[in-house]
Amino acid sequence: MLTINSERLLADLAELAEIGRTEDGGVSRLALSPEDVAGRQWFQERVNAAGLEFRQDGAGNQSAILPAADPQALTLIIGSHLDTVRNGGRFDGALGVLSALEVVRTLKEVGQTLPVHLEAISFTDEEGAVVGLFGSQAVAGQLTPAHFTNPRGGVETLRDGMARLNLTVDSILAARRDPATLAGFVEIHIEQGTRLEEANLDIGVVTGIVGIRSAWLKFQGQAAHAGTMPMLKRADALWGAAEFIQQAKTIVIDQFSPGVMNCGQIALAPGSFNIVPAEVTLALEFRHGTEEQLDAMAATLYPLAETVAQANGLTVTITETSGCVAAPSAEAVVQAIETAADKLGLSHTRLMSFAGHDTQSMAAITPGAMIFVPSVNGISHSPKEFTADQDVINGANVLLQTVLILAQ
Amino acid sequence: MLTINSERLLADLAELAEIGRTEDGGVSRLALSPEDVAGRQWFQERVNAAGLEFRQDGAGNQSAILPAADPQALTLIIGSHLDTVRNGGRFDGALGVLSALEVVRTLKEVGQTLPVHLEAISFTDEEGAVVGLFGSQAVAGQLTPAHFTNPRGGVETLRDGMARLNLTVDSILAARRDPATLAGFVEIHIEQGTRLEEANLDIGVVTGIVGIRSAWLKFQGQAAHAGTMPMLKRADALWGAAEFIQQAKTIVIDQFSPGVMNCGQIALAPGSFNIVPAEVTLALEFRHGTEEQLDAMAATLYPLAETVAQANGLTVTITETSGCVAAPSAEAVVQAIETAADKLGLSHTRLMSFAGHDTQSMAAITPGAMIFVPSVNGISHSPKEFTADQDVINGANVLLQTVLILAQ
Repeated sequence: MLTINSERLLADLAELAEIGRTEDGGVSRLALSPEDVAGRQWFQERVNAAGLEFRQDGAGNQSAILPAADPQALTLIIGSHLDTVRNGGRFDGALGVLSALEVVRTLKEVGQTLPVHLEAISFTDEEGAVVGLFGSQAVAGQLTPAHFTNPRGGVETLRDGMARLNLTVDSILAARRDPATLAGFVEIHIEQGTRLEEANLDIGVVTGIVGIRSAWLKFQGQAAHAGTMPMLKRADALWGAAEFIQQAKTIVIDQFSPGVMNCGQIALAPGSFNIVPAEVTLALEFRHGTEEQLDAMAATLYPLAETVAQANGLTVTITETSGCVAAPSAEAVVQAIETAADKLGLSHTRLMSFAGHDTQSMAAITPGAMIFVPSVNGISHSPKEFTADQDVINGANVLLQTVLILAQ
Repeated sequence: MLTINSERLLADLAELAEIGRTEDGGVSRLALSPEDVAGRQWFQERVNAAGLEFRQDGAGNQSAILPAADPQALTLIIGSHLDTVRNGGRFDGALGVLSALEVVRTLKEVGQTLPVHLEAISFTDEEGAVVGLFGSQAVAGQLTPAHFTNPRGGVETLRDGMARLNLTVDSILAARRDPATLAGFVEIHIEQGTRLEEANLDIGVVTGIVGIRSAWLKFQGQAAHAGTMPMLKRADALWGAAEFIQQAKTIVIDQFSPGVMNCGQIALAPGSFNIVPAEVTLALEFRHGTEEQLDAMAATLYPLAETVAQANGLTVTITETSGCVAAPSAEAVVQAIETAADKLGLSHTRLMSFAGHDTQSMAAITPGAMIFVPSVNGISHSPKEFTADQDVINGANVLLQTVLILAQ
């Protein structure tokens, strides 16, 4: 049975991890940043070195292509993203792109032709430093004016990043692919959770991806002298934010499990030891399996912010920003992955993804599914993110076999 | 009875408020900033225009001097500070410096000589953008190595600011004044509270100033993916900080009133919608009337931070930074202010100051006290800070009469 070149794949992963490497061994390769540009150059060189066709579309997505004999053949896309969160890990995204490259490289090497064009893709800005699922949404034709006018990373970050990559709104919109030309999409990714590890399983077959909603909550009170204004007369915006965090956390745990929420950013003004905070801006994100459950979370958390603000003598402004709709996998692709794992003698289970992935964009225009491999201790978005070599190799081989099944 | 020139004083206040003026009508003239430098130039020009002797010491304190006939006479110092908090008001500090200048200018104008040298001073960095009570502590000989190695505003702010004003550690330490040369210190300031307004009184005679403690609380947890890490397995540093804020606030209100606390700054890392916060740094400040009460607050709040951290699976590091010891006024100066107010037919009351002021440094080396005038709605450290013209004029006239009493 054909297998990938394990050493080459592991060496690629190690080499890429040096680009944007942080002091504590993590990786900061934020989308459209100078580090991201360096990662892109490295990827292009690897594609060229393998003698594969390199392509970059108008949204900055980069691909390595192994063409079918028939130019009119459909295209089977495999891949993920090379951008990371700030001080994140070396596997999230990178594993999917480099495994896809390795699969295409392996087939090229043995001279195997497929009845489909095989394309290993690296999508722009999956993590949302700028927009989130930027490249895959462009390919899926899902970008709206709001993605450009109210991007999660701010309009300046978007504008500067587009300039750095020579992207324009027109070029990005032109990256849209015709679904009629596609044969499917498969993405391999670390689980970023502990379900596989706890069950001692090799492979997770993803049946769907949770939806994500995110919003800025701006609590506004009244600046005052931190000595002379009596405690009971204050309108302290941080008191409101702190109470919201506490209550929202408890409510989500008690009423919406396994749904989750996070407040991952906070900014305070004016910002001095001796001034009562007048304004606190809080980044709220929450995730659940269906749009109905997300609606229910929004209908609880947003009014909670209002109630807490009023109780603290504050006002609150809620501004929703980029989110992702929940996305079920294609049963045919799920079964192909299961068959591939069985052929390799690897144990597997079906599970839901609590993280957003490029597959949720792609699954809207072509049959798609994901392959998960175990994450040690479930840690991700952290320098401590780790997946064992054998799991990396297993995943890439499952991807190769899945491609061979789907290509028929 | 001699009185100050009201129109000139009000015009000075209005003119100074333009330097560092913010969009919403406040003032940002942070100590040692370019705006502070502009304010200092303006002040020097006003002193020169009045034909007064100008002096700047090694800590950047600026003075207007009306010399006594006898060069060996003692010096009576009056004044306050021209620096502001970020987006603060136009009266805090400025009122004290400009009233002092006006008193000296009035005496110079009528050719009145005093048996003491009279010095109107503008102290460097009262508010603590860099150190807090920086100039007055230098004069009082209270600066320690910790003020330079662990300044509240950070070592870079201190170093850059010292360079901007051509200050050196040696020059700052040389600003120390010999207590044997001083006759006393009087500062006029807005109340920054509502006690005078609520009691409909003209003048507050300050019997003492609360002590201030400040500390950085760094809560440390574990970064993780905000989707895949189950809520109950997270070590979210912001959850700890939020719980601390909530509990500390309640405890201070319930157990330490009229003592107060404030969390006026918060910083979070890594800082993304989709990453569980790994580290939150919180600025904690608390104030009370005696060192014993401050010790009791510290002995409650610091262990609370430890308990909350543990309960949330976090660690916390507490780093105390610049504070101020509680400072009682000199009874002789308090009585001189009361006599002055009586002579002017103004109502008055004794009260404690809940804000730190340069007087607390000066009171340690020479008999000192403060004059408060009403603040509308008690608002301070805010663009909405306001004191009525008549209260400004009353305060300056009380200062003039107090000077005439103390000079004898």
